[in-house]
Amino acid sequence: MTTETPAHVEYDDDPALSATGLRGFTLPLSPSGRTSLFPPPPWDYSAEMLVVDFTADRERLARYLPTGLVPTAEGGASFGFGRWSAGADADPRMKADPARGQHDEAYLLIHAMMGEKKVGFLAFSWVSTELSQIRGLVQGFPKKLGAAYISRPVELGRGGPQRQPGHTLHAHVNSMNRRLATASVKLDTAEPEGFVPPPATIPHLYLRMFPTLAPAESPVLELSTLTLRDVEVGSAYSGDAELEFGESEYEELAELGPIQAGRGYHYWYAMTILEGSVVPLES
Amino acid sequence: MTTETPAHVEYDDDPALSATGLRGFTLPLSPSGRTSLFPPPPWDYSAEMLVVDFTADRERLARYLPTGLVPTAEGGASFGFGRWSAGADADPRMKADPARGQHDEAYLLIHAMMGEKKVGFLAFSWVSTELSQIRGLVQGFPKKLGAAYISRPVELGRGGPQRQPGHTLHAHVNSMNRRLATASVKLDTAEPEGFVPPPATIPHLYLRMFPTLAPAESPVLELSTLTLRDVEVGSAYSGDAELEFGESEYEELAELGPIQAGRGYHYWYAMTILEGSVVPLES
Amino acid sequence: MTTETPAHVEYDDDPALSATGLRGFTLPLSPSGRTSLFPPPPWDYSAEMLVVDFTADRERLARYLPTGLVPTAEGGASFGFGRWSAGADADPRMKADPARGQHDEAYLLIHAMMGEKKVGFLAFSWVSTELSQIRGLVQGFPKKLGAAYISRPVELGRGGPQRQPGHTLHAHVNSMNRRLATASVKLDTAEPEGFVPPPATIPHLYLRMFPTLAPAESPVLELSTLTLRDVEVGSAYSGDAELEFGESEYEELAELGPIQAGRGYHYWYAMTILEGSVVPLES
Amino acid sequence: MTTETPAHVEYDDDPALSATGLRGFTLPLSPSGRTSLFPPPPWDYSAEMLVVDFTADRERLARYLPTGLVPTAEGGASFGFGRWSAGADADPRMKADPARGQHDEAYLLIHAMMGEKKVGFLAFSWVSTELSQIRGLVQGFPKKLGAAYISRPVELGRGGPQRQPGHTLHAHVNSMNRRLATASVKLDTAEPEGFVPPPATIPHLYLRMFPTLAPAESPVLELSTLTLRDVEVGSAYSGDAELEFGESEYEELAELGPIQAGRGYHYWYAMTILEGSVVPLES
Repeated sequence: MTTETPAHVEYDDDPALSATGLRGFTLPLSPSGRTSLFPPPPWDYSAEMLVVDFTADRERLARYLPTGLVPTAEGGASFGFGRWSAGADADPRMKADPARGQHDEAYLLIHAMMGEKKVGFLAFSWVSTELSQIRGLVQGFPKKLGAAYISRPVELGRGGPQRQPGHTLHAHVNSMNRRLATASVKLDTAEPEGFVPPPATIPHLYLRMFPTLAPAESPVLELSTLTLRDVEVGSAYSGDAELEFGESEYEELAELGPIQAGRGYHYWYAMTILEGSVVPLES
Repeated sequence: MTTETPAHVEYDDDPALSATGLRGFTLPLSPSGRTSLFPPPPWDYSAEMLVVDFTADRERLARYLPTGLVPTAEGGASFGFGRWSAGADADPRMKADPARGQHDEAYLLIHAMMGEKKVGFLAFSWVSTELSQIRGLVQGFPKKLGAAYISRPVELGRGGPQRQPGHTLHAHVNSMNRRLATASVKLDTAEPEGFVPPPATIPHLYLRMFPTLAPAESPVLELSTLTLRDVEVGSAYSGDAELEFGESEYEELAELGPIQAGRGYHYWYAMTILEGSVVPLES
Repeated sequence: MTTETPAHVEYDDDPALSATGLRGFTLPLSPSGRTSLFPPPPWDYSAEMLVVDFTADRERLARYLPTGLVPTAEGGASFGFGRWSAGADADPRMKADPARGQHDEAYLLIHAMMGEKKVGFLAFSWVSTELSQIRGLVQGFPKKLGAAYISRPVELGRGGPQRQPGHTLHAHVNSMNRRLATASVKLDTAEPEGFVPPPATIPHLYLRMFPTLAPAESPVLELSTLTLRDVEVGSAYSGDAELEFGESEYEELAELGPIQAGRGYHYWYAMTILEGSVVPLES
Repeated sequence: MTTETPAHVEYDDDPALSATGLRGFTLPLSPSGRTSLFPPPPWDYSAEMLVVDFTADRERLARYLPTGLVPTAEGGASFGFGRWSAGADADPRMKADPARGQHDEAYLLIHAMMGEKKVGFLAFSWVSTELSQIRGLVQGFPKKLGAAYISRPVELGRGGPQRQPGHTLHAHVNSMNRRLATASVKLDTAEPEGFVPPPATIPHLYLRMFPTLAPAESPVLELSTLTLRDVEVGSAYSGDAELEFGESEYEELAELGPIQAGRGYHYWYAMTILEGSVVPLES
């Protein structure tokens, strides 16, 4: 086993950090910096997505949106599952260790209008690794730990669904010992090249927050967005979907009330996150 | 949530079992039988395999083989990782629930001669689900619980390796808080259609065992093999491999001594298990 | 790290096993035998138990009992949680490694009459480690993997409940992403020395089963019991209890119908398992 | 199942938060606020601690301390394990759900001088729940997810160690598939009432940090301390200890070099965290 600090791990030269004599992009800091939970961006992502579009009551949806955003006319939203692989030039350990660079996710994205602009507000997300969770919290992703199980399309045989019309993909997500959501998509269409599934067309907004324990201080709290590069959508299949939310004392999914599942999409997606920036509230 | 017993779950009409008034193919038995750990065969499998061929000292390898088997002339063995999907006609819950029907595996297969016949003896295996583990023990697979992490090839982007020459796939397996094996394969060849990777060509043998706690009784102990149907090998890539074993107080992998990793193969594989049968010891 | 085979690990000299040239009390066998899932008995146990007595409909309860057993007149049963520590003289690794020697459990014990004798039939059990699960299956315990969370009484402070009247202990068990049972006991009584909680007074019966895949062979299937030594009950507290079962497509707890929780008991328990023996069915 | 928002969950009336129309002390925010990862303080804690004091090379230790702190003359440090229970008046779900309110921990505390004052600097910590991890990051605890396994003293029987001289308690911690530290304490002394183990006597310092992704902004980065109330130490036992660090590509424990384990302490501890405050760097 080699436990050398990778040659390419490089950390920010933030002056305040340098003054501490310790290194790292996040806690835990250490002499070399290799103990940090994740490296600085850019971060590269590739994902196999299974996303279900649905509609819900507009008044209920509105309660999940920050001031300044309103539901779309149809009360649209997406519940998605992703099987992510991620890397970073600053930290080759992410690609070399699938336990660190790969994670599974489920999330609720509410379609909303910010003035005349259609945006997606990430209301909830559950992921399988702490790297993804805490990197997400830094970006404003409201991430909890959760276990998402998603059908893996198979190339041959009858052990699982193939990525072909007639086959059904299943997924569910669980957190804190509760089943939160169960979905399935019965594929009926191989989408043409260049097709972009509707849920992949909306820019996302996040609410970034870091509480303080010092009574006189204010928490970090800001609407934020990310600068992306090299966004790509790959091959896609679609089909009619089913979606069901479950109850949990720690979640508010079932409180969305009756929902109508629409189409589901299975597609490949890739992008690179460069940096974040603040969006004025109530813009 | 529907918790009805699936219409297609059918259980064996073993007379001894019927006499108990309970139902199920395995423990736990219950009024409906739906609590069993797994259904009766046939069992359908589809898998994405990452297998590294290696050689080791013949005398050391011989110690891991049951009487009647001897290492091959070159001291050959395979260390494999599999991402499995499995289903059964008798239990549609396996395909409907990816948490139950899908599992990851790592295993050591020692290439051996049984008289003039080349066979693969499954020495150790680690899997991610109890369904796979205990179904395996019933077949004679020496399975423990373990966590195998395997690179998932991506269709596009830089988040993970693509399934193309020049990309490297990584895998490792862990059990009882120890890293047992770490492997990587740098793909250099897209194999032609019809290619069968060497480790997929050998019939396997298993040692089936079920201890008894009653001093006067003998444990179940028999060399066994399985009857397969619809064995298929799909697309395959290969490359030079690296493989390293780690120490654990619960394992005997590092005790194989120095090993020489050869080629590694990434391929799709499918088959159906119909039934098992006993192979005479020392045949 | 020492990965030597412990000096005191000794394995059975079963002649059939010796003939294989391999060693171990269970799969996986290996040259030294240290890879086995667990050692031979005697097995020593110490446990902190939280057990809720309840009653249910007698006709429903009867469906969970093997032929030959009938529910008690009052339709009694116990749902228990245990925090177990276990060791074995044959394998000092169990006490040296808390990840291996300690496990948590939840179980359903149905009180039953076998002729004139009152017995407890273990209908279901969920445990946190494979060692406990598979050792249990060998004994006839219908064990699945599950996560039981149980309040740990604290000695001081307000972080958790103390083991004193007025404090409430909570527990729940989960398996395959479903909440199976949730219980609480509000302690109101410190029981006197020598008190034995009712659920600890009944001899247990188990249905031992090992399926076969060879169509011509019969599975192992027998009612069994265990020979114990050094059974001890320690300090005990009791209180009124609450108990609720949840739905799961893999379980049949909710199908017991309405239940009436009675008293709950928190007590220490210890014993040594020496061996097993077969009980004639329909005795 | 009751999934009502608990009546006693109350969230801060931070004006910036109120302006968002959403509620909660942390992400994820929601209409009711019940989705937050943890509630606001005060936080009550009770813990069963197993702490090993050790010494290491002073120059190596110095590299792990932020500017302004220097190792003690003897190069002292503590490696501790804790079995924590935690509650909060603002969120009764913590005590009602042992899966949320209880966690296990391992940590490295370096003894240091800040001018004339002896302090403990928390260099690394690994915990079993996201609630503990992220609540810790907000406080400046450098927490990662990890699995700590700690002997549970038993009241009777031979299944595990009793809390008495002559018995040995074991513990180890693992993260990202590596064994990080293994410890044992052979108890030889029941400490008198009022005894305070040395590692429990030092005030702690933390480095609080929250990265930013916006290039023009500075991360949160400050030395901090916590205001505690109702600190109590309960019954204590001690004994000679063993301690060993393992290698991991994600940690820097083994890089501390040779260490000399001293005494180990098993004791109960409780306190309430009220709030945090900033400590000037290089004071």
